Parts: sequence; structure tokens; C-alpha cells
Amino acid sequence: MSSPRDGGVAPAGGLPGGDPTRARSTPLSVGVLASGSGTNLQALLDTVHGREARLVAVASDKPGARALERAAAAGVPTRVFPRADFASREDRDAAIADWLAQRGVELVVLAGYMQLCSATFLARFPDRVLNVHPALLPAFPGIAAIAQAVEHGVKVFGVTVHLVDEGVDTGPIVLQAAAEIPNATDPEAVHEALRSLEHRLLPEAVRLVARGALRRDPSNPRRILVD
Amino acid sequence: MSSPRDGGVAPAGGLPGGDPTRARSTPLSVGVLASGSGTNLQALLDTVHGREARLVAVASDKPGARALERAAAAGVPTRVFPRADFASREDRDAAIADWLAQRGVELVVLAGYMQLCSATFLARFPDRVLNVHPALLPAFPGIAAIAQAVEHGVKVFGVTVHLVDEGVDTGPIVLQAAAEIPNATDPEAVHEALRSLEHRLLPEAVRLVARGALRRDPSNPRRILVD
Repeated sequence: MSSPRDGGVAPAGGLPGGDPTRARSTPLSVGVLASGSGTNLQALLDTVHGREARLVAVASDKPGARALERAAAAGVPTRVFPRADFASREDRDAAIADWLAQRGVELVVLAGYMQLCSATFLARFPDRVLNVHPALLPAFPGIAAIAQAVEHGVKVFGVTVHLVDEGVDTGPIVLQAAAEIPNATDPEAVHEALRSLEHRLLPEAVRLVARGALRRDPSNPRRILVD
Repeated sequence: MSSPRDGGVAPAGGLPGGDPTRARSTPLSVGVLASGSGTNLQALLDTVHGREARLVAVASDKPGARALERAAAAGVPTRVFPRADFASREDRDAAIADWLAQRGVELVVLAGYMQLCSATFLARFPDRVLNVHPALLPAFPGIAAIAQAVEHGVKVFGVTVHLVDEGVDTGPIVLQAAAEIPNATDPEAVHEALRSLEHRLLPEAVRLVARGALRRDPSNPRRILVD
């Protein structure tokens, strides 16, 4: 099994999960960071957990996050890293990374995690951090993405799963799915419609990583090809 | 029948085609501007022409545009306005607007028209100029939109029909449709896939205008509601 410390990733390949021609004999160890209700975490627990992947750690910045209860109910170890307990964001992120590494995490999934990951954190899991964002990136990055899209008057909404880099929702795109909603005026109604896409796409992305099915296009490293 | 000179449009309503509760007794008179092969023009000729709408004028900046042949073959009057024949872009656009107005044009459709419309031109047809763009705006405005999207590595592509304002592909969105293409590396193959969306969306937008089915959301004038 590969470890998160294998080192850097060649621009032309080597996404988490390894060589697509080599079947994994063990499930992919996944850590999840969540701040909120944890419905995307629940989707992972209900689909890939115990199959292609094993959720081995769920961390949150929010002590009361419902995501922590969901993890505990599924028997997945949890830990809270409140910002106030650390001198800096860097220190907090280092502590999270240490804990995830101790738990053998190979892939980190941000599932409704409302914090940016520091460069130091990302360096610990190179090309091994996924995020799910409720818009068709590169349109509407950042917070309140759905409200931004509704305000702009778009007719097609969607969801993006991408590799996390140091920008705000700027990393290479892994999967996207769209929903046509012609007369959207209520962001919450749109979010309701997008939730099923999130709950399909995020497990699918984890499956692809577990299968080693993702690679960067040699001719354009920001383009992810799905085998 | 309304004319393009009716004047301004109230922010909260009054898109071309008039009151949705009032059925039109005559088809909507449409003028098309095209620079290229004219497949979107052909889609209009094959669908709405002679039904909800009547194409009454096709103009081009390019003397050899295939679009002109298509129009002539369908018996639609054409005229070429080469940039070199006019002292300025403003003069050229004024001449185009004059010709369209003489032909009784109520709605102008840009169908592969590779020129920006000047503010003076737009003022002659307020809220009555539609454009079709091969991307899910606001992502990838401007030229080579599909190549930009392929380069960015998106997995969902699409088409937007929007009202034209003075920006580059920034006007209020009327219709959008999406296509999921996970491993796109060739812009031409993507364009091939999007063409059927363009050929569906553009006639549909003209139909909506003819029916008076479009109105601006009173609470947000850049959002177009479809009745």
C-alpha cells in the first residue's frame, strides 16, 4: 500500500491510487475534513466505505459538527481541531496532517469543510486532497457559490470535484455534473437539487482514486484524464 | 406589430415579443448577423422560419460567408457590410442597423458573428439582440471559448444564449444547456458535440421571444425568467 509520504507526483501521472494497471489488494484509506452537517460524509459512508475505500479518520474545526456524530455512528474515529487551540492556522493544519498520517490516510476528502488548507498541509498530501464544490468551476468559486450563480441568472448549475491546490477552488477538475434549472431564484432550492449530484460525484471520485483511474494529461498537467 | 424603435425597456419586463398574455397575430421579424458557415442560421431557417418567426434579413461582415448562400437559397434578402467600406466601426454598425430597421427587424440574432456590436447599434435594438456562445457563461467568454474550456480541463461543456450588452458575452442569460464530456482534449470534437445544443437552443430562444415568454426578474433585472 502506498503511503501519503511517497513524495511528489510526476506531472504526467501518479495520482493517488497508483498505477491503473495494478489492482489494489486493500481498500484506500480515506480521511475526511468536515465543518457542517456531513451529508457528503454520509454519502461516502453509505457507498464506498467498506468497499473500495475505508474511512479511517474524520476531523472537524467545529466541535458540534453533525458530521462528527455521523462518523462516530459508523465507528470512524473523529477528532476536533478548534482554531482557538492553536497558535496559528499553520499549526492547526500541521496537527491535522499529523493525525491523518498516523491514521494511515492516503486520500483526504474535504466534505463541506469551511477552512482553506495551508500550503504546508497540501505538501503533506500532494495531489491527494479532493474537494467538492457546488458550482461548475471555474465559474463561481469561493463561498456562497450557489447564491452567486442564482444572482448571475445562470440556467445550468452543477457540482465539481477537484484536486485542492493553494487557490480558492482552482485545482484540477476531476469530475463535474450539471443540472438545468431555468427559473432559479432560491439558492436553497438549487442546493437541494445539487445535493444528489454531490452525493453521486464525491463517492465516484473516491472510487476512481481507489482504482488508480485518474492521471494528469501529459500534454496539460491541469487536465485530469479518467481511465 | 412592435417596431425596434419602440424605445427603452422597463427593467422589470418588456422583453421583445411584448406581453406574454397577448398572442402575436404575425410572426416575429428576425434579422441575423453571421460571419461564417451559418449552421446556426440554417437551424433557424429549418425550424422557426415561416412559423413563429420570419427571417427577413441576413447581414455579414464577410463577403464570402457561407451563411449568405444559405440565406439566399431560402429566399432571405442578404447584404454584406465589409469593415473596409466604412470610416469607422460606428458607421458600419449604423448602416447595418438602418438596413435591419428598413426590413422591419424586431429581433437581431448573432449567429457566429465575429464582430462586437457597438453601443450605438445596441441602442437601436434595446434588449432585442441575442447571441449564442459555445460555453456555460460566465465561464469562458470571448474568442476560442471551447479551446479555453478544454485547456482548463472542465468535464462539463455547454452553450449559452444571452441578450447582448456592451460587454464581451456578459449580457443576461436566456437559455443554457450542458454536455458532460469527461475526457475532452480536442476542441473541434467538443464543438461537434455542442453544435446540436446550439441548433436546439437558438431556435428555442427565438420562439420564446416570439411568444413573449421572457421577462426580467423584477427583483434582479439581469435574471431572465421564462414563462
